[in-house]
Amino acid sequence: MIVALAGGVGGAKLAQGLAMAVGPENLSVVANTADDFDLYGLRICPDLDTVMYTLAGIADPVQGWGVAGDTVATLGGITAYGRDPWFKLGDRDFATHILRTEALRAGQPLSVVTADLAGALGVRSRLLPMSDDPVATQIETLVGRLDFQAYFVARRQQDTVTGVVFDGIGRARLGPGVGEALADAETVVVCPSNPFVSVGPILAVPGMAQALAASPAPVVAVSPIVDGRAIKGPAAAMLESLGHDVSPLGVARLYTGVIDGFVLDETDAGWAPAVAALGMEPLVTRTVMGGSDDRARLAAEILAWAGALSRNRR
Amino acid sequence: MIVALAGGVGGAKLAQGLAMAVGPENLSVVANTADDFDLYGLRICPDLDTVMYTLAGIADPVQGWGVAGDTVATLGGITAYGRDPWFKLGDRDFATHILRTEALRAGQPLSVVTADLAGALGVRSRLLPMSDDPVATQIETLVGRLDFQAYFVARRQQDTVTGVVFDGIGRARLGPGVGEALADAETVVVCPSNPFVSVGPILAVPGMAQALAASPAPVVAVSPIVDGRAIKGPAAAMLESLGHDVSPLGVARLYTGVIDGFVLDETDAGWAPAVAALGMEPLVTRTVMGGSDDRARLAAEILAWAGALSRNRR
Repeated sequence: MIVALAGGVGGAKLAQGLAMAVGPENLSVVANTADDFDLYGLRICPDLDTVMYTLAGIADPVQGWGVAGDTVATLGGITAYGRDPWFKLGDRDFATHILRTEALRAGQPLSVVTADLAGALGVRSRLLPMSDDPVATQIETLVGRLDFQAYFVARRQQDTVTGVVFDGIGRARLGPGVGEALADAETVVVCPSNPFVSVGPILAVPGMAQALAASPAPVVAVSPIVDGRAIKGPAAAMLESLGHDVSPLGVARLYTGVIDGFVLDETDAGWAPAVAALGMEPLVTRTVMGGSDDRARLAAEILAWAGALSRNRR
Repeated sequence: MIVALAGGVGGAKLAQGLAMAVGPENLSVVANTADDFDLYGLRICPDLDTVMYTLAGIADPVQGWGVAGDTVATLGGITAYGRDPWFKLGDRDFATHILRTEALRAGQPLSVVTADLAGALGVRSRLLPMSDDPVATQIETLVGRLDFQAYFVARRQQDTVTGVVFDGIGRARLGPGVGEALADAETVVVCPSNPFVSVGPILAVPGMAQALAASPAPVVAVSPIVDGRAIKGPAAAMLESLGHDVSPLGVARLYTGVIDGFVLDETDAGWAPAVAALGMEPLVTRTVMGGSDDRARLAAEILAWAGALSRNRR
């Protein structure tokens, strides 16, 4: 069994590659839920849904999130009522949020709701929320503390980030199945997601560090930074404003003590020795994923390499 | 000020005609809310919304309910999750239900939510739910008691109706503004809606009979039965199975003591003497409404006639 820790678009792409490489039933994806929020009275889980839609093969291939070909008539109706459509929600996407909210309000935990929704979409991998308990990422900026989606979507990541807070993390418990998946894992892959706001919350759930440490599997991470830039999102800007190197090394340092191996893009081969000096095995390859062929190729390459890694992280 | 009591499509059409005839600011519509129900965790108010969309000029002109030109992508998404799309909800319609549910859950009363939604759609008449308290029509049939929409939509009114129950009616209070509107009314028009399941619940709200009796306005009703058939819906079948004449007279008898005048279609002119014998003034005219010209003409005709009626109902 392979376990992937994933945020949004980048994480979802590699998770899909892993599902293709090992067969979807042999993959569990632990998804970030700290970007979940309420909008129009509905519970929205952007990262979780991006992974779900991607694994279901219905994600929008251009933007990476949302459902391919989705329309925005319901959001248009909401706009007609004078509400701000600042967060783009497609019509099919609304179906997800409506049914999830219904089930959550009926008392079902997010993990059960997610399994039901993903199953109905034909997802055969296990999609596990990092926690059933609400955790809310908040971003400290020069203009004050912002809810994550306010920072990320409404304000287009324009603010300088001075800190990241996971509200509720102290009371959160690992999602059902997460500990078991890690205990049974052959390899754990930290996907190329933002280390602060996508992977960070997953690693911060109480019990997660212990579960990773206790896992027999080698843990490897893929750099979301290539050639000094993030493939998507504010990872590079956050590395800089939070005082880290804007490089694969800067990311690798954040995972010291957690991972055994680190995957860098071939553009960044020069960083491999410094990564190795952190006590991690480096793998240099093409990490930028386009379509599904790319994703499957990268996933297979990572798994072949990681399978031979010793657990040297402690 | 004119007050209309309205159910769904037929009531909405005449309400629109009244708004055109006297100016929208001079009309208050008291709408049935006993067909409200929860679906997919959202609060759906079919009659209220039909009136709202019609007064806003955006109702589907063919089916009479829903929003003109609406698409069904969100419902398609819900269907893709394996849920039964037995109640047709359009995408723009979903926006209404989502925002209403959000506001209700935040503690706003239905009357406030309705005023906000209708106002945003440009409705200048006052749209008043009969009550802010939940009332649920249930239909006694040969196969047992059915929730109203199960009888009306899911089972297509195929069951023989043996009784009608308004669950919660005993605890319901008149909606804010309803009593005041009746006290200030020049004319009260009971629209051509189903007397059992559309007008019936409105009249059954505790305090409504007294408010109507105390109103200085003549109260007139328009027959929903023309030539032995209901223009729309199960009114004719319900009259028959509940032991009433399937005729304007059968409807007029149900309103004895409540109304001063009764409007029959010219097709049913032969019933006028029998209606008059009930102590009501009959008006015979064309009552079948097509487009807005028809609606405005009928409304103007009713108001001109009703204004000269004495209050003779007691």
